[in-house]
Amino acid sequence: MSIAIRKLDSADAGFRDKLSAVLAFEASEDEAIDRAAATILADVKARGDAAVLEYTWRFDRLPGQPAASLAALEIGQEALQAALASLPEARRAALQTAADRVHAYHERQKKECGSDGFLYTEADGTELGQKVTPLDRVGIYVPGGKAAYPSSVLMNAIPAKVAGVQEVIMVVPTPDGVHNELVLAAAAIAGVDRVFTIGGAQAVGALAYGTATIPQVDKIVGPGNAYVAAAKRRVFGIVGIDMIAGPSEILVICDGTTDPDWIAMDLFSQAEHDELAQSILLCPDAAYIAKVEASINKLLDAMPRKEVIRTSLTDRGALVKVRDMDEACEIANAIAAEHLEISAEEPQQWADKIRHAGAMFLGRYSSESLGDYCAGPNHVLPTSRTARFSSPLGVYDFQKRSSVIRVSEAGAQTLGRVAAELAYGEGLQAHARSAELRLK
Amino acid sequence: MSIAIRKLDSADAGFRDKLSAVLAFEASEDEAIDRAAATILADVKARGDAAVLEYTWRFDRLPGQPAASLAALEIGQEALQAALASLPEARRAALQTAADRVHAYHERQKKECGSDGFLYTEADGTELGQKVTPLDRVGIYVPGGKAAYPSSVLMNAIPAKVAGVQEVIMVVPTPDGVHNELVLAAAAIAGVDRVFTIGGAQAVGALAYGTATIPQVDKIVGPGNAYVAAAKRRVFGIVGIDMIAGPSEILVICDGTTDPDWIAMDLFSQAEHDELAQSILLCPDAAYIAKVEASINKLLDAMPRKEVIRTSLTDRGALVKVRDMDEACEIANAIAAEHLEISAEEPQQWADKIRHAGAMFLGRYSSESLGDYCAGPNHVLPTSRTARFSSPLGVYDFQKRSSVIRVSEAGAQTLGRVAAELAYGEGLQAHARSAELRLK
Repeated sequence: MSIAIRKLDSADAGFRDKLSAVLAFEASEDEAIDRAAATILADVKARGDAAVLEYTWRFDRLPGQPAASLAALEIGQEALQAALASLPEARRAALQTAADRVHAYHERQKKECGSDGFLYTEADGTELGQKVTPLDRVGIYVPGGKAAYPSSVLMNAIPAKVAGVQEVIMVVPTPDGVHNELVLAAAAIAGVDRVFTIGGAQAVGALAYGTATIPQVDKIVGPGNAYVAAAKRRVFGIVGIDMIAGPSEILVICDGTTDPDWIAMDLFSQAEHDELAQSILLCPDAAYIAKVEASINKLLDAMPRKEVIRTSLTDRGALVKVRDMDEACEIANAIAAEHLEISAEEPQQWADKIRHAGAMFLGRYSSESLGDYCAGPNHVLPTSRTARFSSPLGVYDFQKRSSVIRVSEAGAQTLGRVAAELAYGEGLQAHARSAELRLK
Repeated sequence: MSIAIRKLDSADAGFRDKLSAVLAFEASEDEAIDRAAATILADVKARGDAAVLEYTWRFDRLPGQPAASLAALEIGQEALQAALASLPEARRAALQTAADRVHAYHERQKKECGSDGFLYTEADGTELGQKVTPLDRVGIYVPGGKAAYPSSVLMNAIPAKVAGVQEVIMVVPTPDGVHNELVLAAAAIAGVDRVFTIGGAQAVGALAYGTATIPQVDKIVGPGNAYVAAAKRRVFGIVGIDMIAGPSEILVICDGTTDPDWIAMDLFSQAEHDELAQSILLCPDAAYIAKVEASINKLLDAMPRKEVIRTSLTDRGALVKVRDMDEACEIANAIAAEHLEISAEEPQQWADKIRHAGAMFLGRYSSESLGDYCAGPNHVLPTSRTARFSSPLGVYDFQKRSSVIRVSEAGAQTLGRVAAELAYGEGLQAHARSAELRLK
């Protein structure tokens, strides 16, 4: 059965509205889930370890009675190393290569993103600057069950360690008591300091407030289910959080010179994530679009996750004929996709026109899947048009800045008069007097 | 009547608990306000301009019937320039000096925070990097009425313009139809592109969703009342937002060698903001603390905002005797204050020990009020211990990054094998095939 994938043409009347309809996605806000998360958070805040233990046994369906202590749910470094040692050699080597490359990229990022801070001196001796410091302690949420991705452990933990975070605490639920050895192996490679097998809103609460066993962290990162997302929104401000991620997206701009099978498989690689994932192709060549459609239908049946792919492509996918590559870039800026592949000859000319994208994959060899695992840049990227204002997870997410102001005696004479004038204008007389007391 | 300001000693039993009690602050979460904000947002999303006009007339008590068009509430550039021209010369000059200094600091910050991005080439020709781009359009919320601060217009708008934001749209309510000329003058100096006299949750909704008259922005920054804060929380994800600010705080570490009047006035300058503001002194010298207390009582009566100061210092202030300056730094890291003054000889030795603070004011001439107006660094700073994980508002808040991945043909051979191995491990076969199709 062939896929009824939507086809649009930018020359058609009403194209922009049709495209907007395809892109439209609103995360369902479930009041019941939000309330449940709030209740669990309040309980964890009030009762600490005991509450976390009870919820963990109930929601993760662990056997028997809750353990007497949350410490029983900590996985020690020896167990992590054992998980790593138990992997088949090829897989262990692949994980290590991926970790090494992610580490190298983020080291470079650290060097390039102003991590040393700055300080400069003005003519009157006043010094101004900025100090950059890592967060002290970070929590990483790793989902259990089917969406447990070892690559995400690397992508969340390595930038934190590169930033200089002293303690990275990972939480990962074990539904029905099942451990994911690949996830534990990834924690070992990434240098995670402590691992607790807890999850859900109760794990978010434990990290945000701290309990007798679990230390309070300064920021919580990593994806989770609707309860985890609701809990993260609620603890925002007590701790930092990363973005609330929406469904994954790929936008491919192709000039019609890439093997259509490659493009079809790239669209599949996003669609297989889940039914809400979005895969869109922009191309100025109608004949080429037909070839990609033929490849999609040819290749689909062999995919183990073909039903997910079919639903995703049917419900949220699109093959879009555009006027030319310039228009493709303009549309790409409006879409602000999480992943943007520019599969074209001399892709840089088009990349230069892109203002909004989580990650850009340039040239026909840069399949998005390479970025997901091992190219080096982070695979935690802004979704749902948030690339308009936010960035890939990075070293900078695990650092913060402090302004540094050292006013000289001479500087206080000139600055004091300016500050006093403005403070009186705002009706803040103590501000003004505080400046004026330093005047000769 | 002397102030009953709390005095603590770090050597006393239970000191840490007492300090925690002083620091404890929980923003009241008012369910009714949150619901009202949600209703207004939904209405603005559905009915656009008409809803914004109705709410504006109702909540800001504007005279007569709502205007036929929201365009009537736009203040043009000529009116902004006229407001600037109407200021007394000394005040205009002070505002311009402050703007110039804020501009200069943020230009330096832009240069130092990795704004050029980076790109590097690996041995096999694969290129990896990061592109940095400004946000397209930003909304700045400026409160009307008593908390209308022209300095905040400068501090929010200038970093956006330095970052390269093409359009800065300011909203400022005019309760009872009253315009604040100093705020409009600051908008003129800061280069704000458009100004609308709207406020509240309706202004946040207009900026987040866009209306016929008001274009959708990519991020909303600036402080507001509880309705504004609730609305910003709710539109987070559709647009970016800055931090939700808590009450302002100052922490002074003093070695006992600064004029006690200066320190008393510095504590006042924070306390006068509002009754919930927090002013704390840490000092190893008990005799000096007594002198500061005497100065507080001597100076209070002359302050026009003395009742606010008295309430703030009584309810939330503290004079803390510490063992030594090292312990003061350790306590300062636990407090993670918005403003930290280190009023001491050779302050740098102590500043080096500080990990968490929004801004550090070093040496006895660096009063916090200079930083509020004209030192150059931003006065929008993390409050309520959020300096543990967040930063002053800066150029980086108006930029975002995109990863750049250009894998060479040779690179695709090595990376493809690694990615495929890991993708099979995660059960994502289309990811694996997408990488394998690029293998020779």
